[in-house]
Amino acid sequence: MERIDDLGINNFKLIQDTDSFCFGIDSVLLSDFAKQDIKTNSKVLDLGTGNGIISILLCAKTKLSEIIGVEIQKNSADLASRNSKLNNLEDKFKILNCDLKNIENFICNNSIDSIVTNPPYKPLSTGKTNDNEAKLIARHEIKCNLEDIITVSSKMLKNSGSFFMVHKSERLADIVFLLKKYKLEPKKIRFIYPNINKESNLVLIKSVKGGKPFLKIDSPLYVYNPDGSYTNEILKIYGKE
Amino acid sequence: MERIDDLGINNFKLIQDTDSFCFGIDSVLLSDFAKQDIKTNSKVLDLGTGNGIISILLCAKTKLSEIIGVEIQKNSADLASRNSKLNNLEDKFKILNCDLKNIENFICNNSIDSIVTNPPYKPLSTGKTNDNEAKLIARHEIKCNLEDIITVSSKMLKNSGSFFMVHKSERLADIVFLLKKYKLEPKKIRFIYPNINKESNLVLIKSVKGGKPFLKIDSPLYVYNPDGSYTNEILKIYGKE
Repeated sequence: MERIDDLGINNFKLIQDTDSFCFGIDSVLLSDFAKQDIKTNSKVLDLGTGNGIISILLCAKTKLSEIIGVEIQKNSADLASRNSKLNNLEDKFKILNCDLKNIENFICNNSIDSIVTNPPYKPLSTGKTNDNEAKLIARHEIKCNLEDIITVSSKMLKNSGSFFMVHKSERLADIVFLLKKYKLEPKKIRFIYPNINKESNLVLIKSVKGGKPFLKIDSPLYVYNPDGSYTNEILKIYGKE
Repeated sequence: MERIDDLGINNFKLIQDTDSFCFGIDSVLLSDFAKQDIKTNSKVLDLGTGNGIISILLCAKTKLSEIIGVEIQKNSADLASRNSKLNNLEDKFKILNCDLKNIENFICNNSIDSIVTNPPYKPLSTGKTNDNEAKLIARHEIKCNLEDIITVSSKMLKNSGSFFMVHKSERLADIVFLLKKYKLEPKKIRFIYPNINKESNLVLIKSVKGGKPFLKIDSPLYVYNPDGSYTNEILKIYGKE
């Protein structure tokens, strides 16, 4: 079943398929985290774009010239194309329906200014779920794993190009190890916590290709106040404050 | 010049040389972070023990059977020995005055249950300071660097043995990369922030030799309240609450 949501910025809207993967707070936080570093006229890749939410938010929040959403699932890629048209973004937001491991057939190495990605979070080995295939592919490392995404990103980025990812905090050690292995130096990390007393569940990471080692650990981002209401920072990111 | 401080626990005291390196909040936080994982009757190493502060605090806070403080500087090693005697800890807290890179001449590989370390924070390349030699060696990677400490720790620990370190947050990426390279899997990280609005300056890390990848990012530890007073958690760690 499909539904249309108002994104609350630039009058942009998003068609989502409720049988597939609907966007969550992670996509909104990633686009907010990346926006200040995505420069005017830059060429951007969104690896695993799904229904296109991150790309559409970045079209609203930055002055990028082009963003290419790479998506392996035909149905999701079609949805992303319809979302691009719905918001009159066909000139900026283009969809490439392919396996990101074959991206070199379509895009030149060392040609991209910035990459954003909200990849599948769960390793293949973790327990089965009752999700349908579309959701499984979006959530589990079935079609690509962390190393695939980081290898491809390192190849596609220009030197000094920036890489932005949201992921589960529990996988940070693997993430940092692979980023360094492929010369994407971690430069800024922000941890997201459900509230002030909980462990972090999500992490936002910025790397720079060929950057020098010096990592900034931003102040924590809390989602909820102790009373269960959204924090002011979350309301601000959602444009509700 | 020397002074004697009361450590506020078990009536333990510490002689410090004010011309050398005096202990700071990092040593206190590291001993608190490590204490719950240091088991009864365990054999522990303290790499770069300095005046012995971390070892003495761990003798007070845990039921370890033996802790060996490794210290390359003769004057600091002598001071650590005097501090061990002053607190009647000669049977538990022993000092080894040697370069940690030669530790295999004195201690068997795969024989240690836990390692704690508050190493020099600054790479050799960073700017000169006006400190005297003793302070320079304690603060800069002159006699040993991060990779030396992690290599030695990986050799000395038993399988499933635990490694605890405090370091500058800005160096986290290098730390995680080297820990994984030498099979010390990061299992728990806690970031220390001066207050709720600042970036993190220090990080506490626990690794387990041969552990499986799954990292817990603890709730943030704030040192100061917005009004500049110490937070309740810091007062509790110092035994003042």
